[in-house]
Amino acid sequence: MNKSMIAYILGWIMKLEGLFMLIPVLVALIYREHNGVWFAIVAVCALVFGAVVTHKKPESNVFYMREGCIATAMSWFIMSVIGCLPFFLSGEIPSFTDALFETVSGFTTTGSTILSDVESLSYCMLFWRSFTHWIGGMGVLVFLLAVIQMTGGSNMNLLRAESPGPAVGKLVPRMMHTARILYAIYLGMTVILFVLLVCGKMSVFESLTTAFSTAGTGGFGIRNDSLASCSPYIQWIVTIFMILFGVNFNAFYFLLLRKWKQLFHMEEVWAYFGVIVAAILIIMTNTYGWVGNVMENLRNTSFQVGSIITTTGFMTVDFDQWPSLSRYVMLFLMMIGACAGSTGGGMKVSRFLLSVKSALRELNSYLFPKSIKKIKMDGKTVDEEAIRGINVYFTAYMLLVILSTFLVCIDGTDLVSGFSSVLGTFNNIGPGLAKYGPACNFGVASTFSKCVYIFDMLAGRLEIFPVLILLYPPSWRGLLKRRIKRKKNSRTNISVS
Amino acid sequence: MNKSMIAYILGWIMKLEGLFMLIPVLVALIYREHNGVWFAIVAVCALVFGAVVTHKKPESNVFYMREGCIATAMSWFIMSVIGCLPFFLSGEIPSFTDALFETVSGFTTTGSTILSDVESLSYCMLFWRSFTHWIGGMGVLVFLLAVIQMTGGSNMNLLRAESPGPAVGKLVPRMMHTARILYAIYLGMTVILFVLLVCGKMSVFESLTTAFSTAGTGGFGIRNDSLASCSPYIQWIVTIFMILFGVNFNAFYFLLLRKWKQLFHMEEVWAYFGVIVAAILIIMTNTYGWVGNVMENLRNTSFQVGSIITTTGFMTVDFDQWPSLSRYVMLFLMMIGACAGSTGGGMKVSRFLLSVKSALRELNSYLFPKSIKKIKMDGKTVDEEAIRGINVYFTAYMLLVILSTFLVCIDGTDLVSGFSSVLGTFNNIGPGLAKYGPACNFGVASTFSKCVYIFDMLAGRLEIFPVLILLYPPSWRGLLKRRIKRKKNSRTNISVS
Repeated sequence: MNKSMIAYILGWIMKLEGLFMLIPVLVALIYREHNGVWFAIVAVCALVFGAVVTHKKPESNVFYMREGCIATAMSWFIMSVIGCLPFFLSGEIPSFTDALFETVSGFTTTGSTILSDVESLSYCMLFWRSFTHWIGGMGVLVFLLAVIQMTGGSNMNLLRAESPGPAVGKLVPRMMHTARILYAIYLGMTVILFVLLVCGKMSVFESLTTAFSTAGTGGFGIRNDSLASCSPYIQWIVTIFMILFGVNFNAFYFLLLRKWKQLFHMEEVWAYFGVIVAAILIIMTNTYGWVGNVMENLRNTSFQVGSIITTTGFMTVDFDQWPSLSRYVMLFLMMIGACAGSTGGGMKVSRFLLSVKSALRELNSYLFPKSIKKIKMDGKTVDEEAIRGINVYFTAYMLLVILSTFLVCIDGTDLVSGFSSVLGTFNNIGPGLAKYGPACNFGVASTFSKCVYIFDMLAGRLEIFPVLILLYPPSWRGLLKRRIKRKKNSRTNISVS
Repeated sequence: MNKSMIAYILGWIMKLEGLFMLIPVLVALIYREHNGVWFAIVAVCALVFGAVVTHKKPESNVFYMREGCIATAMSWFIMSVIGCLPFFLSGEIPSFTDALFETVSGFTTTGSTILSDVESLSYCMLFWRSFTHWIGGMGVLVFLLAVIQMTGGSNMNLLRAESPGPAVGKLVPRMMHTARILYAIYLGMTVILFVLLVCGKMSVFESLTTAFSTAGTGGFGIRNDSLASCSPYIQWIVTIFMILFGVNFNAFYFLLLRKWKQLFHMEEVWAYFGVIVAAILIIMTNTYGWVGNVMENLRNTSFQVGSIITTTGFMTVDFDQWPSLSRYVMLFLMMIGACAGSTGGGMKVSRFLLSVKSALRELNSYLFPKSIKKIKMDGKTVDEEAIRGINVYFTAYMLLVILSTFLVCIDGTDLVSGFSSVLGTFNNIGPGLAKYGPACNFGVASTFSKCVYIFDMLAGRLEIFPVLILLYPPSWRGLLKRRIKRKKNSRTNISVS
């Protein structure tokens, strides 16, 4: 294993995080908060340590899938540990597990919190909390498109299959180009959202944190009631942008280049909007009569549906109080998640679509055993390998949900709370139902359960396998070196500029 | 489509059912019950109608997968409709939907009941209720091995892959030979169980019905408290036999032929016993202190675990009162189900095993992208087509569970009741949790929900695709004839003797 290369990447991550942490220091200076000193200390340490590790570029450029996965998973873990230090050291979150939970929840854009009183945090902490969402939302794209893809991973086939716009090439300049286009869209949309929120008479600080949380589809707010006390205008703006940030970013690329034909052929995006509209209609019918005003019902329903399907986790009403059909629809939306190539989490709409298509193909194969029908998506044939990958992902997803729920139930958590909280963290949504419903928080969970949730959030965000590989013993066995040498043909190179 | 052949098969099913119905007539004569007359009337009608339909053998022997699936699904539906008539006509179950639910629950060996007072039924009705389990348990083997397999269906690959003993050949005599061996084992074990129950001082009638319900892994009892009031001896005997009827019948074949090596290589059977032991240990630890006596706890836990994993559905205690970890373990057992090639339902242990193996292979493929590793089971390589089939089955299973839970929730059923009852019926177990827990019944469900459950029971029993094909529009389109002609090479023949 190319350990020096992994260390080099981790060093870079530390340096980047150190730089990011200087922004909350600025916030602390503006608001004259003493706790900002912890950000400064951690940032300097991270920068120095990172610089020491990266002072020499490793000689070997060899970088396999295994290295890519391990580097990704370790980066996320180290990012989270460093990121939680200011919370813990300042004493604003006294427990280390709680601080780590909060930071992992931030970076993975989950938005679950252990805090019952968010408003008691200082401004610099609140800023950092929301900013982790923005880094996480962006960071995932970096890792997905800049690390995992370059190592020729089959888990990228899905994204590649439906990414004809910003082509996911193997060349480094091309890849960086792609990543830059996506960053530009991401940053641009965040700025537009920020301006629109400020226009809605939201304070600059709250507009900024809300924009970060919405862009990363995270869900951390700076008020205890999330966005319930905001004006209808703000709620509508956030609803629209949550849904937009859940769209495959390629769609925006096509929109910018006015490639209407390709845009209208994006099945996943259509399915995504179809599911949203259907869910809103079902829930509005189901809760008809509960709220007097139809417009208010539409606003609340749209907000909650957008928040859950994009895995943001903001809320304006407690949907755990809705009738069971509506709660079930919410559970279903939790599982599906947003589009591939967005900042949202979950199983992704395209995976769900392809699963349905492969089940329909099976039906057809019963009728016409000799006909081998290709599965199509966006008018293009989908690689059989990609279908297999989705099926395996689906299996691993179910196995991990089953296992996690089991572990959480050991603590005596009831079935609905346990299952929905696992879905909530695994899909990076935030709230579950019952004990972990939108009006509650994860502070009541035991340390053991919190560790399970931390694992689930990371596994869900990194699409399972990178995190599993980190824990899979054969990844670490030295005796595998021989096999790797035999497979020199399959190597891919990575260059970190 | 070869309609005359399908009609011919359906005619035979009617004749067979007419013959089976003469047995409850005998029971009615013994107990001098007037309601036996309804069995006689329905039996005669079925025999006459069946004889008319089958008076001429159809000329065309062509029988595709499509015909096989449609014939299977229709047979089950017609069997159930005829089977429910005595309940309905006699007025012992006044609602037709209820009577149909009860009969489908019987034939599919689910064991869910709409009756709150089972003991008020007459003896002939009680007998028929339990006897449907025995027919269903046997019938599924007939259909699986005699209908679906002969048409070269890929859904049989799983069973074929692990059936080296009673080889699933394509020749009719061979197939019949296989079916006869399985029947002989089935009948033999039922007789042994019956004798052991009679030795435990159970009445002959109750021993017979209990043996039928256990053999078919059904779960209908003739007492309101299921087997709670039986002696520990009876409970132990039933526990052991429930678990035995959930074992792949090939194991018994190997046992009879003393093929120890093949027997000890059956991974599925080992996994099955492993899961049972693990579940018993977890639940006993979890409920430690709830029951004073360890032996009593062991007996109750073993009984419930055996009853749920084999999808029988008998009960001696209300496991819905157990702590949430134990309830969760029960939900997990509901999903897994028994071994392939047994009378039990569920997803089957082998499917679960192969799913885990394919997820592990994916992990390995990340580590060694160029190595194509074969998945092995019982020391043999498993066909890639079979793996794909399992993945698609898994997907279709999840989609149907999601859809059914949604439909059931429309009626306002709470999430735990809705989800667990769908799992309970879909996996042919019987009870769910909460509102449909072991101490409750399905009588409270609405007609709409009952129809959903009836569909789920049939879909679960026939492993989804045959039932879906019946409802899939392209199966019925006449314009497909052209395509079929083009595929004459892929035809398989069926001869009904």
